[in-house]
Amino acid sequence: MKVYGTSVSGNCYKIKLLLHLLKVPYEWIETDTRKGETKTQEFLLKNPVGKVPLLELDSGEFLSESNAILYFLAKDTAFFPNDLLVQSRILQWMFFEQYSHEPYIAVNRWLIHFQNKKDDPKIQGNHIKGLDALRIMNDHLSTNQFFGSQRPSISDISLFAYTHVAEEGHFPLSDFPNLNSWVRRIKEIPNFIPIY
Amino acid sequence: MKVYGTSVSGNCYKIKLLLHLLKVPYEWIETDTRKGETKTQEFLLKNPVGKVPLLELDSGEFLSESNAILYFLAKDTAFFPNDLLVQSRILQWMFFEQYSHEPYIAVNRWLIHFQNKKDDPKIQGNHIKGLDALRIMNDHLSTNQFFGSQRPSISDISLFAYTHVAEEGHFPLSDFPNLNSWVRRIKEIPNFIPIY
Repeated sequence: MKVYGTSVSGNCYKIKLLLHLLKVPYEWIETDTRKGETKTQEFLLKNPVGKVPLLELDSGEFLSESNAILYFLAKDTAFFPNDLLVQSRILQWMFFEQYSHEPYIAVNRWLIHFQNKKDDPKIQGNHIKGLDALRIMNDHLSTNQFFGSQRPSISDISLFAYTHVAEEGHFPLSDFPNLNSWVRRIKEIPNFIPIY
Repeated sequence: MKVYGTSVSGNCYKIKLLLHLLKVPYEWIETDTRKGETKTQEFLLKNPVGKVPLLELDSGEFLSESNAILYFLAKDTAFFPNDLLVQSRILQWMFFEQYSHEPYIAVNRWLIHFQNKKDDPKIQGNHIKGLDALRIMNDHLSTNQFFGSQRPSISDISLFAYTHVAEEGHFPLSDFPNLNSWVRRIKEIPNFIPIY
């Protein structure tokens, strides 16, 4: 299978990380959003939404949305256990990630670390909402080792992607001790690969 | 089971609609975000994210995030067929809904129709991005009857919730003929219940 992705993107890193944890071979096709490579006519034929990551199956079919790709790859593995309520909680945290976490934490990382737009008017509001998301995660980890399941699952991979580099968006990770312990636990999973 | 929800909310309506389509009995507990009822200490113990819809199982356990609740209720029914790629496409459209659709279409409906904030500076940008989402959906429907599957699935329920009332947020549905046909198809599903 092929993965179209921007290497520094957390959403794309999710796919790379899971494929390494599962020891699944793949071909990475660097497709840089910063160079407009996801908005070309050729790419839009593959994914009309114009975003990466994008999975191309050996059959030639395409699948988009990072968290849907994680589901596709993890089904029937230990990263998506076979219990309906556990599966639903894993998805709960993945929808939380896309709605209440990524739009603030990933976007401020993008503006501050990659675009050097430290004065963008969106940053302050995003910072407040991003801190809310980190606090909710930190509180959850006061009585849980992971998100959604008793062991690492695709909800952890999804949340890890932008959380562990949140300081690049000026989020003070040191204020959230449970998050730091969880980040260490994820890095200890066999076959872990870093984003950089 | 119990559903905590705000009746006029599209996210909450998703759950009500699926429960009716599946003929599953439930108790609706009106919990109005506009009155701050999702931010009380009592409610935050049920859902630390402070949002509805929230599902309470007979076991006393809670599940949040509208699309994760849809998954929980639809698994092993015709609304979530048992084919991995179809399931992944259904989730693909549900993540699209929460990331590229709801934040623009639902928010403008909220600001314009419920809050009477027609001059809010966010409306114009949301309008452009919401039109993008409707165009992507309309294009998909030029060669498909539904989203993700050959028959109605939880991705249709998820996307229907805010799309069919998008005009309340001043989105011109009449510009998207395929969307209008699809809205009619959804309303024809046996046991359909309207939002109002």
